[in-house]
Amino acid sequence: MTRVEEALMAARAADIRAAALELFAERGYQATTMADIGAAIGIRGPSLYKHVGSKQELLAQIMITTMDALIANHRAAIEGCADVTERLRRAAEAHVRFHARHRLEAFVGTREIRSLEEPHRAEVLQRRARYERGFRDLVTDGIGAGRFHVVSAKLTSYAILDLGMGASVWYREDGDLTEDQIVYQYGDFALRLAGAR
Amino acid sequence: MTRVEEALMAARAADIRAAALELFAERGYQATTMADIGAAIGIRGPSLYKHVGSKQELLAQIMITTMDALIANHRAAIEGCADVTERLRRAAEAHVRFHARHRLEAFVGTREIRSLEEPHRAEVLQRRARYERGFRDLVTDGIGAGRFHVVSAKLTSYAILDLGMGASVWYREDGDLTEDQIVYQYGDFALRLAGAR
Repeated sequence: MTRVEEALMAARAADIRAAALELFAERGYQATTMADIGAAIGIRGPSLYKHVGSKQELLAQIMITTMDALIANHRAAIEGCADVTERLRRAAEAHVRFHARHRLEAFVGTREIRSLEEPHRAEVLQRRARYERGFRDLVTDGIGAGRFHVVSAKLTSYAILDLGMGASVWYREDGDLTEDQIVYQYGDFALRLAGAR
Repeated sequence: MTRVEEALMAARAADIRAAALELFAERGYQATTMADIGAAIGIRGPSLYKHVGSKQELLAQIMITTMDALIANHRAAIEGCADVTERLRRAAEAHVRFHARHRLEAFVGTREIRSLEEPHRAEVLQRRARYERGFRDLVTDGIGAGRFHVVSAKLTSYAILDLGMGASVWYREDGDLTEDQIVYQYGDFALRLAGAR
């Protein structure tokens, strides 16, 4: 393949993933067929399989790519910041901002976890556990430093994560709160949940 | 109909709703057929329609019944309690307890809102708005009384609601935290989010 052909292939694959994501969000994974996905971007069945192996593979790609982006996002947010309170604030802000910007991915990620087959399911659950662990470690560090005060670090990390995921359900660009307003208040919420003083 | 016949009809209708709920949760509303629902409880298609008009009607019944129960639950929780801080704590506890106990309803309620047709959709959204309003009023009352301190009462009520809904995703009876442990910590979380002092 030439470079131009490669670029075209990559662009096509991205289009297919985007169409699949919209259809999975709209009607659910089970009710979506490969033909529906092809029709959404004007590709017939057989050509579609040049780009992607199966509907299951598409779902797995979407969910794994999303989790990897979320984990990278978390690392970038706390990198180079030593203060435990500030680290938690940044991580929470990054979490809610990601969810406000990737609402379909969040929606499909929660809804279709049970549609994943192995080994994809384990791969996604592993990444989710690692991501949650990152928040739990931040809370635990803050407790150790005498800065946070909670009954359960695990439940606190769950609560902080649920906050951001909730935002992906109701946030709208044209709503009466801007993305930044939501992000900064959620950063404060995370610190309040952690009992930061 | 005799009373016995009426009781049998009611029991059957409840079975049908329970089967529909499980199937909607497992494979999604779009991918579930009336025949699937009938098969799950051993009723053939035509007999099923003696009990329920359509799949859409079943979804609407499930979602409206759930919202009505949640609203009644909220009222019962705060009734006869005058202290604003205690009212918010009780309402948040009732909210998370309900979600821990009605996980399938919560899951389907979030996931299938877009599968509802009018007027059902408006009826459900109205109830959701009323329920959210109840929390927002509690927060606003607390601010007025100088007991709560937040930037946005609306965002705070959203955050408290998201907490409970999140628990419905990950809570398991056989997990390492009991329902009560979760409920009491979430009550505290709600007060922390509200900036209660």
